[in-house]
Amino acid sequence: MNFQPRQEKLREYLATTRFDGLVISHLPNVRYLCGFTGSAGLLLVEAGANTFFTDVRYDTQALEEVKGAEVVVANKSPWDAAAEWISERRGKARHWTIGVEANHVTLAEKKRFNDGLPTKVRAKDAPPQVERDRMVKDDDELECIRAAVKLGASLFDRALKVLRPGTKETEVAAEMEYVARRAGAEQMSFPTIIASGARSALPHGRASDQPIARTGFVVCDFGVILAGYCSDQTRTVWVGEASSEAHHAYEAVLAAQLAAIHAVRPGVTVAAVDSAAREVLREAGLDKNFTHSTGHGVGLEIHEAPRVASGQKQILQPGMVITIEPGVYFPGRWGIRIEDMVAVTPQGCEVLTSTPKEFLAV
Amino acid sequence: MNFQPRQEKLREYLATTRFDGLVISHLPNVRYLCGFTGSAGLLLVEAGANTFFTDVRYDTQALEEVKGAEVVVANKSPWDAAAEWISERRGKARHWTIGVEANHVTLAEKKRFNDGLPTKVRAKDAPPQVERDRMVKDDDELECIRAAVKLGASLFDRALKVLRPGTKETEVAAEMEYVARRAGAEQMSFPTIIASGARSALPHGRASDQPIARTGFVVCDFGVILAGYCSDQTRTVWVGEASSEAHHAYEAVLAAQLAAIHAVRPGVTVAAVDSAAREVLREAGLDKNFTHSTGHGVGLEIHEAPRVASGQKQILQPGMVITIEPGVYFPGRWGIRIEDMVAVTPQGCEVLTSTPKEFLAV
Repeated sequence: MNFQPRQEKLREYLATTRFDGLVISHLPNVRYLCGFTGSAGLLLVEAGANTFFTDVRYDTQALEEVKGAEVVVANKSPWDAAAEWISERRGKARHWTIGVEANHVTLAEKKRFNDGLPTKVRAKDAPPQVERDRMVKDDDELECIRAAVKLGASLFDRALKVLRPGTKETEVAAEMEYVARRAGAEQMSFPTIIASGARSALPHGRASDQPIARTGFVVCDFGVILAGYCSDQTRTVWVGEASSEAHHAYEAVLAAQLAAIHAVRPGVTVAAVDSAAREVLREAGLDKNFTHSTGHGVGLEIHEAPRVASGQKQILQPGMVITIEPGVYFPGRWGIRIEDMVAVTPQGCEVLTSTPKEFLAV
Repeated sequence: MNFQPRQEKLREYLATTRFDGLVISHLPNVRYLCGFTGSAGLLLVEAGANTFFTDVRYDTQALEEVKGAEVVVANKSPWDAAAEWISERRGKARHWTIGVEANHVTLAEKKRFNDGLPTKVRAKDAPPQVERDRMVKDDDELECIRAAVKLGASLFDRALKVLRPGTKETEVAAEMEYVARRAGAEQMSFPTIIASGARSALPHGRASDQPIARTGFVVCDFGVILAGYCSDQTRTVWVGEASSEAHHAYEAVLAAQLAAIHAVRPGVTVAAVDSAAREVLREAGLDKNFTHSTGHGVGLEIHEAPRVASGQKQILQPGMVITIEPGVYFPGRWGIRIEDMVAVTPQGCEVLTSTPKEFLAV
C-alpha cells in the first residue's frame, strides 16, 4: 500500500478547514492512512507532521507497520497520550483547534480528551473526510478486494457440498469458515448468514442450530476479510421441489439485481441504482417485500460509504466498490436475496463476484 | 434469561437521577436488558414504560426476542424513530431530559438525536450504569458463561493435535474455529491469537500465515461466543527442546497467575489482584516484561468492566467474572501468557477454565 498520497490528500483537506490538526481514531481510517492493524492507536495529522500514538502492547507492531508518521508509544491510552503530547508541544502557541471524527468519537472520549488539553486547545467535531476519500479505491485496494471476493466465492462451492436437509445451519457456516481460514482469511467480515425455511425471511438471519428444512429457500450471505479487505456475497438456493411461485419470485429478484448492476456507471447517483432494482420488483408486484436498501460500499469495512439507497445523492465514480443486493421477504414463509460486489469502471462496472446466480435447486 | 429484574434495577437507578428517561443504544446493553440480538435497536427506559425501536429488517426478530418493552418498528434508523416518538409523546409536557450512554454514543449520533427533538427535550450524557449492573452476573448468565468456557477449552485440545513446526498459525486457528462453529458457537469472541517464535512477544499477535517455528513458545489466546456470552483463555506451549531460561520464565508467569487467582475474593480491589501477579514477577526479575494489566471482566462482551489493573478501585463482588492473564514479553525473542476465567464466589473464586497449565513442550 502507498500511504503517502492518502496522507497528502487529507493534509490538503486540512488546509481548507478551520482545524489546526485532525485526530483520526476510527481504526479502519487509521489503517487506511498509515497501515496500523492493531486495536489501539490514533493518528494526529497536522500541516507539517503526522504523529501516531499507541500503547505498550503495540510497541513492536506499531514500529513495524506504521508508515509516514512518528510513532509515540505510551503507558496510557492513545487519547491520553495524544492530549499530553499536544499540551506539551502546541499548548503555548495560540488558540488551537483539533478536529475529531464526529461519526466515531464517543461523548466520553471527547470530554476526556478536552479535559486533558489546555483551555486554549479545543477538540471540535469534524466530518467523515477519510471515509469520503476511502470511497474511491486505489489500485492496491482493488487488488486486495479482488482477492477477498475470489476467496469469498470459493466458500459457496463448499457450502453447496454440505447444504442438505437436516444439516444444521451452523454446520454449513462452519465448513465455509474453515475453508476461509485455511486459505488465510483473517476472519469473516460479518457473522455468516445461513437462513433456511421461514428463517430465510429474516434479512439478517445468522446461522442458527436449526437444521436445513426439507424444502424452501436457504439464504447464504457471507464474506471474508483478507489482508484487511472485506468481501460480501449472497446466494439463495432452493431445497427440494421448487414451486412456480418460488421460481417466479427468484427470477424477479435476479432481474432486479441485473437491472441495478446495469445502472451502475460513473455520474449516476446511488439512488438511481437503488430505484433500478426497485422498479423491476414493482413491476413484479414484489416491491413491498423489498424492505432494505440495494447496497453499500465495501472495503476495509463491510459497510462503508456510499449507501446505495433511495434519497442518497452520492454520485458514482470509477474506483468505487459497492454491493448490489436486492431481496424479497415474506415473513413466516421465505425470503430471497442475491448479492454481488461490483467495481465502478470508467465505462460502467465490473462484477467482481463470479459465482453463477441462476435459480438453483439442490 | 429473566429480564425483569434487570429492567427494574435500571428503573430504580433512573429514579435517583436528573433524567426523565434513558436511551440504551449500546447493543450488548440492549441485549442484556430486553433480549434483542440484532444489529440495530435501542431501548428507551422511562419510569413507567420501556419502548424498543428497531428498523424494518428486524421486525419479525424483534417481536420474537424483545421482552418487557413495547416494540416500535420504523422505516428509519432507531435513533430517528426514537426522536420522533419522543417528540410526539413527551414534547409538549415540560422540560424533559434524556440520558444517552456517554461511553458509546458518538458526537454525530447525539447531535442528530438532539436535532430531531423539540428544544425543550434535551439529550445529556449519562454514565455507564448498565455496564455497572452487568459486572455482577446472575445465575442464568453464569450458566451461559460456563458453557462458553467449556466449549472454548475444547478448542485447545484440537490445537494441540495440529500445532507442530511448519504448520501455519492460521491453520491452527482454522482447526480451532471449526470445532467452535460445529459445536454451535456464534463466532469467535476476538480474532484468534496464535503467535509463534518472535511473534509470541506480541501480546496481540493474531494468527498469521507464518509457520510455527521449530523451537520457541507459541501463545494461543482464543475464545468463543456461545448464546451471546464470551469465553477467553490463553495457553502458551513450548515447541522443541526447552531451555532452562524459558522454563524458569514460564514457571514465574504461572506462579504469578496462581497468586492473582488466590487473591480473588469479595471485598478485595481489582488493583490488589493485579499487584498480586506483579509482585511474583518482580521477585523473579520479570515485572518490567509484564507490560499489560492482569485481566478484565467478561460476559456479553469480551472486554467489559471491571479492568483488573493497577490504580483501579473496583471492589470484587460474588458473581463477577474476570480473566487472570499475566504475561511476560521479550520483544524480538519470545513471550508467555497464561489466562483463565474466574468467577467470584462468596468464599473466594472458582476457576472456570479447566485446561491444565503446567509447562508443556510439544
